Amino acid sequence: MFYFIIDVLGIIAFSISGVLVAMEKKLDPFGVFIIAFVTSVGGGTLRDVLLGATPVFWLKEMVYIIVISVTVVFAVMFRDKLKYVRTSLFLFDTIGIGLYTLVGIEKGLNVGLVPVMCVALGTMTACFGGVTRDILCNEIPVIFRREIYATACIIGGFSYFLILQLPIEVTYANIVAISIVIGIRLLAVKFKIALPNIYRASKKK
Amino acid sequence: MFYFIIDVLGIIAFSISGVLVAMEKKLDPFGVFIIAFVTSVGGGTLRDVLLGATPVFWLKEMVYIIVISVTVVFAVMFRDKLKYVRTSLFLFDTIGIGLYTLVGIEKGLNVGLVPVMCVALGTMTACFGGVTRDILCNEIPVIFRREIYATACIIGGFSYFLILQLPIEVTYANIVAISIVIGIRLLAVKFKIALPNIYRASKKK
Amino acid sequence: MFYFIIDVLGIIAFSISGVLVAMEKKLDPFGVFIIAFVTSVGGGTLRDVLLGATPVFWLKEMVYIIVISVTVVFAVMFRDKLKYVRTSLFLFDTIGIGLYTLVGIEKGLNVGLVPVMCVALGTMTACFGGVTRDILCNEIPVIFRREIYATACIIGGFSYFLILQLPIEVTYANIVAISIVIGIRLLAVKFKIALPNIYRASKKK
Repeated sequence: MFYFIIDVLGIIAFSISGVLVAMEKKLDPFGVFIIAFVTSVGGGTLRDVLLGATPVFWLKEMVYIIVISVTVVFAVMFRDKLKYVRTSLFLFDTIGIGLYTLVGIEKGLNVGLVPVMCVALGTMTACFGGVTRDILCNEIPVIFRREIYATACIIGGFSYFLILQLPIEVTYANIVAISIVIGIRLLAVKFKIALPNIYRASKKK
Repeated sequence: MFYFIIDVLGIIAFSISGVLVAMEKKLDPFGVFIIAFVTSVGGGTLRDVLLGATPVFWLKEMVYIIVISVTVVFAVMFRDKLKYVRTSLFLFDTIGIGLYTLVGIEKGLNVGLVPVMCVALGTMTACFGGVTRDILCNEIPVIFRREIYATACIIGGFSYFLILQLPIEVTYANIVAISIVIGIRLLAVKFKIALPNIYRASKKK
Repeated sequence: MFYFIIDVLGIIAFSISGVLVAMEKKLDPFGVFIIAFVTSVGGGTLRDVLLGATPVFWLKEMVYIIVISVTVVFAVMFRDKLKYVRTSLFLFDTIGIGLYTLVGIEKGLNVGLVPVMCVALGTMTACFGGVTRDILCNEIPVIFRREIYATACIIGGFSYFLILQLPIEVTYANIVAISIVIGIRLLAVKFKIALPNIYRASKKK
């Protein structure tokens, strides 16, 4: 039940983020829905396809399409209010990537992959939806632009495998790892920590 | 035989639409072929990959690659005449999305998906080729821009499941549903019906 | 061992080409890694997904992620020197597409596909990584712009099946076909041979 609530919150958060980007691009209602949909399930879809876990998850469960549809309808109806909830959005999104990272890791473990590949899958699950959203909207994916985003997923993912070495239950290891992803992302944004700039400012020409 | 002819017509129509867009972008002959190819088979490929119906359909049958190759050669040879056939192109394309929608639905039913997922698969089969074409040519996918396109597939797809409730043969249900997709698309274009504009005109700034 | 060395060289070459493009776009270190990664494994991933050979190859072997990581670290560290090695890069890249073409063909033969589909798979394996790199960096894929690139893979691929008709060992047929891909690409660049321009110069308006 706990996971189900977080999962739904993740879908909602990603859907709303998709709606916001799509409406900025003036897409039609159908386009807005599609962008919300791929933002929410894009990462998990890539993961399932790379693993061969087909039909992919959202074809087998109605909950995803229902939650996304309801969210899009509400987000479009209350689009003028959305700017007031951007902070909570950011929070939902952060919770979302935390959870999605661990979901992806779990799926990798289920098919016997080594830890580093599980972390790669988890990071993809968390981040690829946003990448697809940006590609469909014809922008360079925002995660490629120096912010600590995927990096939080990667660090949190590896922490999970370290924590598993301790005498601790898997459920708690999950919660701690999710918290690490969320914590890093929150701190990075709060203190404006970014990946090192590898381009020298002197490159002016 | 009937389906085979329509299928080939669909491939031809989608190939030509790909050639037209690719040549507008001044791609080389190989690029033109690739764009025509993905426009034709992109939707079905996504469908097969999401379902896990691999190897995907066009790897198993030669007819697709042959029809597309011949079409591209002809389309490039007679590129100056293409503007005169745009109306029939539009017609072929419309027939194509009608058929592809039902093909996708059928594949979803075969693996036991619920109706709404079958409709989603059908719509993807019909529309994703054009989306890929636009992404490869670096444009925001045209189906995201207020026209009734995917919407026609969705309505036609759901109609199919309603029709199946009637005491009617599956073949006829297919034909009726295909006609509904085609009819909606034709009427929408003829009467310039579009999805509602959710952006207020006053947003000028 | 021979194949392993060439394979690693191919990964290195494609990684460096990814790093170069990504750094031109001023992506962050994580973005640079991702672009290098998709350039290296994108083609093989598409091939495996279309065939249903999942989990895809790089999830099952650590060597790919390790080689790519090391390459990216070195390429970023010595980014100022990279311009001096562009010629060898071009050579590595060319060796890479030669090898990847034959790897793709082999995988197609393993699942019983006809020659033309095997060649299509081989060409994808060789070229799709670069296409994904360009799409993620928001450019029209360079292979669509008149150069002999995919064409070399296609000709080399078909040569392979012709050579197999001769009384010759499969290993040698592989080496000859790889050499043909490489040779065509080198000659095309040296003599500036391109695909025919199908757009008349008079189209000025």
